[in-house]
Amino acid sequence: MSNKKIPVAVLAATGAVGQRFIQLLEGHPWFDVIALTGSPRTIGKKYGEANSWILPTDIPESMRDLEVLPSTPEAAQTPLVFSALPSDEAKIIEPLFAKAGVAVCTNAGAFRQDPHTPILLPEVNPGHTALIHAQREKQGWEGFIVTNPNCTSTGMTIALKALQNAFGVKRVFATSMQAISGAGYPGVSSLDILGNIVPYIGGEEEKVAWEPRKMLGKVENNELELAEIGFSIHTNRVPVIDGHTVVLTVELNAPPADFGLVAAALAEYQAPEVSRSLPSAPQPVIRVRDEANRPQPRLDIMEGKGMTTSVGRVRPDGIFNLRLVTVSHNTIRGAAGGSIYNAELLVEQGFIKR
Amino acid sequence: MSNKKIPVAVLAATGAVGQRFIQLLEGHPWFDVIALTGSPRTIGKKYGEANSWILPTDIPESMRDLEVLPSTPEAAQTPLVFSALPSDEAKIIEPLFAKAGVAVCTNAGAFRQDPHTPILLPEVNPGHTALIHAQREKQGWEGFIVTNPNCTSTGMTIALKALQNAFGVKRVFATSMQAISGAGYPGVSSLDILGNIVPYIGGEEEKVAWEPRKMLGKVENNELELAEIGFSIHTNRVPVIDGHTVVLTVELNAPPADFGLVAAALAEYQAPEVSRSLPSAPQPVIRVRDEANRPQPRLDIMEGKGMTTSVGRVRPDGIFNLRLVTVSHNTIRGAAGGSIYNAELLVEQGFIKR
Amino acid sequence: MSNKKIPVAVLAATGAVGQRFIQLLEGHPWFDVIALTGSPRTIGKKYGEANSWILPTDIPESMRDLEVLPSTPEAAQTPLVFSALPSDEAKIIEPLFAKAGVAVCTNAGAFRQDPHTPILLPEVNPGHTALIHAQREKQGWEGFIVTNPNCTSTGMTIALKALQNAFGVKRVFATSMQAISGAGYPGVSSLDILGNIVPYIGGEEEKVAWEPRKMLGKVENNELELAEIGFSIHTNRVPVIDGHTVVLTVELNAPPADFGLVAAALAEYQAPEVSRSLPSAPQPVIRVRDEANRPQPRLDIMEGKGMTTSVGRVRPDGIFNLRLVTVSHNTIRGAAGGSIYNAELLVEQGFIKR
Amino acid sequence: MSNKKIPVAVLAATGAVGQRFIQLLEGHPWFDVIALTGSPRTIGKKYGEANSWILPTDIPESMRDLEVLPSTPEAAQTPLVFSALPSDEAKIIEPLFAKAGVAVCTNAGAFRQDPHTPILLPEVNPGHTALIHAQREKQGWEGFIVTNPNCTSTGMTIALKALQNAFGVKRVFATSMQAISGAGYPGVSSLDILGNIVPYIGGEEEKVAWEPRKMLGKVENNELELAEIGFSIHTNRVPVIDGHTVVLTVELNAPPADFGLVAAALAEYQAPEVSRSLPSAPQPVIRVRDEANRPQPRLDIMEGKGMTTSVGRVRPDGIFNLRLVTVSHNTIRGAAGGSIYNAELLVEQGFIKR
Repeated sequence: MSNKKIPVAVLAATGAVGQRFIQLLEGHPWFDVIALTGSPRTIGKKYGEANSWILPTDIPESMRDLEVLPSTPEAAQTPLVFSALPSDEAKIIEPLFAKAGVAVCTNAGAFRQDPHTPILLPEVNPGHTALIHAQREKQGWEGFIVTNPNCTSTGMTIALKALQNAFGVKRVFATSMQAISGAGYPGVSSLDILGNIVPYIGGEEEKVAWEPRKMLGKVENNELELAEIGFSIHTNRVPVIDGHTVVLTVELNAPPADFGLVAAALAEYQAPEVSRSLPSAPQPVIRVRDEANRPQPRLDIMEGKGMTTSVGRVRPDGIFNLRLVTVSHNTIRGAAGGSIYNAELLVEQGFIKR
Repeated sequence: MSNKKIPVAVLAATGAVGQRFIQLLEGHPWFDVIALTGSPRTIGKKYGEANSWILPTDIPESMRDLEVLPSTPEAAQTPLVFSALPSDEAKIIEPLFAKAGVAVCTNAGAFRQDPHTPILLPEVNPGHTALIHAQREKQGWEGFIVTNPNCTSTGMTIALKALQNAFGVKRVFATSMQAISGAGYPGVSSLDILGNIVPYIGGEEEKVAWEPRKMLGKVENNELELAEIGFSIHTNRVPVIDGHTVVLTVELNAPPADFGLVAAALAEYQAPEVSRSLPSAPQPVIRVRDEANRPQPRLDIMEGKGMTTSVGRVRPDGIFNLRLVTVSHNTIRGAAGGSIYNAELLVEQGFIKR
Repeated sequence: MSNKKIPVAVLAATGAVGQRFIQLLEGHPWFDVIALTGSPRTIGKKYGEANSWILPTDIPESMRDLEVLPSTPEAAQTPLVFSALPSDEAKIIEPLFAKAGVAVCTNAGAFRQDPHTPILLPEVNPGHTALIHAQREKQGWEGFIVTNPNCTSTGMTIALKALQNAFGVKRVFATSMQAISGAGYPGVSSLDILGNIVPYIGGEEEKVAWEPRKMLGKVENNELELAEIGFSIHTNRVPVIDGHTVVLTVELNAPPADFGLVAAALAEYQAPEVSRSLPSAPQPVIRVRDEANRPQPRLDIMEGKGMTTSVGRVRPDGIFNLRLVTVSHNTIRGAAGGSIYNAELLVEQGFIKR
Repeated sequence: MSNKKIPVAVLAATGAVGQRFIQLLEGHPWFDVIALTGSPRTIGKKYGEANSWILPTDIPESMRDLEVLPSTPEAAQTPLVFSALPSDEAKIIEPLFAKAGVAVCTNAGAFRQDPHTPILLPEVNPGHTALIHAQREKQGWEGFIVTNPNCTSTGMTIALKALQNAFGVKRVFATSMQAISGAGYPGVSSLDILGNIVPYIGGEEEKVAWEPRKMLGKVENNELELAEIGFSIHTNRVPVIDGHTVVLTVELNAPPADFGLVAAALAEYQAPEVSRSLPSAPQPVIRVRDEANRPQPRLDIMEGKGMTTSVGRVRPDGIFNLRLVTVSHNTIRGAAGGSIYNAELLVEQGFIKR
């Protein structure tokens, strides 16, 4: 019933990730978008006129006439917000919401380094929401902030979690080939990327080398300990619309005698009980492909409605123990869909009241 | 003077690499193309009618009316041939030429694993041509076969040579993003690669993990010893026309205290005296770029007329010692241009008589 | 109920259009794929192993293990077949099915020029199926052949039908920009089309200048009279995966005084009663877009599950009366989906028995 | 001799067209770039640091350290300027230069509609520079402004001129497929154009329908009469880096009995005597290609150093008389190279003093 749903707002709803939130929340069984916010340029306009819609489905009819509001708790008036704010704005605006008692599920990177803000992947580290208690205490907030990881960290961390559980992970070399939608809209100039590779994304390698350590780390007594894993990261922009491909070489703590167990550990990985059956839970968490030339972004990003991490080319390595390839939808699993899955977990865990 | 030039033939002149040979040999100061060979389907036709020319310059006027010949030493009648044959044909045909006293400079991979066939990069290992003596003796040939490396091995080996000379190289993680022209014509289907990444190229990773060890190895007493370097390789096809990008993480034997010396060692690397001033010698061998987002295939492949290896993003690494990016023109430096440079070296060394 | 469905076969099921048939027929309410045929190379293999699946959804589970059969009526054993055969094979094979009493709904062009074979778009000319009577009589067949138009003719003919009904159409200039999937797999070489335009598609302009005249013509007394419309056609291949864009300049017989009526006539066009509510009927037939920069293939091909024709930029012209742009999904509306819609019409009209 | 060269400035030298000016003027036999101007953000910086260079050749060494100046005649201090200013700025700034006695060769569209400002293609209408007399008189300027046409008008007008001379041109349908570099840098977002077609370019169709009429018109008594040619234009953006493709259907006044004369008239077209041998004159003016699938932007844009118009697929039409395809380099022949060729003509004609 619509009147039982939790009313939510989307902050910065006009951008590339904001549009994904709007698209994915259409018809969501638990959440009902009742408010949208945007930049000063768009405030007061109807949503359908305020943005340059770039997704290959129409703007949901129910959103078209919503008025774009300023990004303040007073304007939004909802107990839960999804934030697609740019990091510099998120840094200032999101705490205002948390202070006002709002649960903030954000895609922004502003607070990922904060020791009491979880970077959350429900199929990986649902227990990290325990940090929320410390966050509230330290900040004096009634609400809280929970982030999802950088879109490139997402898929590889899910694959690494399956390996960590089974064999332990020691060191990782990873090279990403990232889709243009990861840079937002207008984002990457076509003159830079058409028929080209740009072997640099500002600030990205630092994030991708650190965020998995936090997500794969332990939370005890409301304190987080980073996982002891070494990372060497190369990030690249490639002419792909959606879908980040990451190739990984991994050193395990306890490599199995039978290499076939590696693919099995990936394929059989299950989300923890608490997050396994949520509306946005990926089915399966990891799809292991046998074909020599898969996964590929064009063919595999919509696996599990865009929430599944596709893995392939699982094979031995000459220096470390194994090599593999992951493909993950960067604006669904790696951004808006991830934040929504986070919010579902927080509802399930009682951090957000129905 | 044209009548002093060495007459040469191009084997398999109608394919993608064959066309590059024809293009690059136009007006060459030492070599004069007097014969072309092709597949049975094209034999007897004029070259201008036998192929689907895919380069953005016209077929050289002097080549247009040459008759396509069968790939036999009797038909070609030249002391030197450039081979763009596919590997399975090269395996059978190239020895016939060598036996007939012809110098074969080939782009094919058929004999790269042979212990007495050098994989040659004149700016890296000109002394490996000493293996030709053993090759002739063993095979009883008057001619010989010299190969250039796989197009992906090329750029990274040149960069690694500079590092090897200065600091020693111990282990290397490398991920390639390879242009479609590397697969020939028609090669990669547009449905496979437009807006996509294919994380697999058949047989490529094995080549790229082995060939640099041979080129960076030592030749003593006509025997080659592979370099003791460990390689972990990922190869990918990307939607780029020309230019292979490789990202590398490198462990050095003796890393410098001052990291700035790494870029200096790359930038200052010079080809050995014997190969430094040949007509196709890259000027410079390595161009080190300072810009954060370079090298890029679209902007950098024609550096040094397509013969220079562009290097950038030289930076420290969290696991090994350094990370860097190389871009190299795969059908010029990595194929036809490389074979021509090899032939120039062989002339200079007296293996081919003027 | 599954046991009430009509059993069907897909001929040449392993190619690009054949795969679309398999994908679109999965779960079809009226048709049940029980047989698949393929080339000699694939006969006897399981479907899941016989083809290189290129669609971004998995092979339907129920199809994976079906054995690929030869393309004969004896092997297929169904009262209805969908044909994705290449034209030269269709010319020989499809009549064998028709002779054996089978209804053939084909995407091949082999019989489009035949005066008694309808080129059928259910939302345009459902009455043309009357030609089947003459076809059977002339050929002595119990079955019959019905074709859908060339993928480029499809979208523009639907738009022209709406204009023809409202104002009459006299002359048309059209330029197509056609997706690579229209050429099948492997089809267009990536070296030909990446970052490029190829202003030529063999035989295409002739088809696109003629097929709409047949579909927009009249059938009386089982004879078809071509519509008196002049066409000037340019066809181009562009680097787009799916979706043919056609820009048109149209001369009307009776242009409306109020230009706004043109867009209205397009937007309000309805399929004839008989084809309006069939399972694959586009909803709506034509979507008229107001945005200045629409329709675009990336954003609009999936409108109406890929069956709707998107139209935009409806504006006056300096020479004729109006200019407009159409976008249509070439392998759904313009190929497999079109054939399935045709079959539904033929069931509805009683040509195929349930 | 360098000290005999005419000193010139490039206005807005940091943008996409500005960079082409700098690239093409490097080593020009008549002109010597001594000054560069840029936006307020870049003034005072060195040129090498003020711009994001997007061309696949290095910034000329001599330009790297030039200081970026404001766009004023006082700062530039040259008798001739090449302007890459955006139209809105050109409207204000270019007259200041003309008033100060400077010859302005501009790529901006601000004054193209002015009856006394020629839109100049030296191989088409060199006599239109006679309008300069009227311009100076009317404006009271010592200097003057001469424009080159829109990049899309350029190639098609050159082809139409050849047809006009031989047979007369009555009406033209044209559809463009325009490269992204035509929109400058950053220009088109990659999310809009990768794997896509955008059937709209703001203001473009109006320009392309009008500018050829001016260039193909007559100047008598310093007054210009537009050519009586009807145009119907569709413009589209396509994922191509450089090179505008235009397909045309043309009605002739006096079509030849022998259709072969059409291609001959195009191939044999020569620039008028005065502009035939200038340094940037295209050799040939028009290259007519016989291959069924040419011209293509990837293969043909550099014909005649980027100054030649490539024409192909010259064939009869069902409504008008002929169809053809043109490809022209939009930032060389259609922008910077065109302006430089214009300046050469003005020197030759004495409007600019050596």
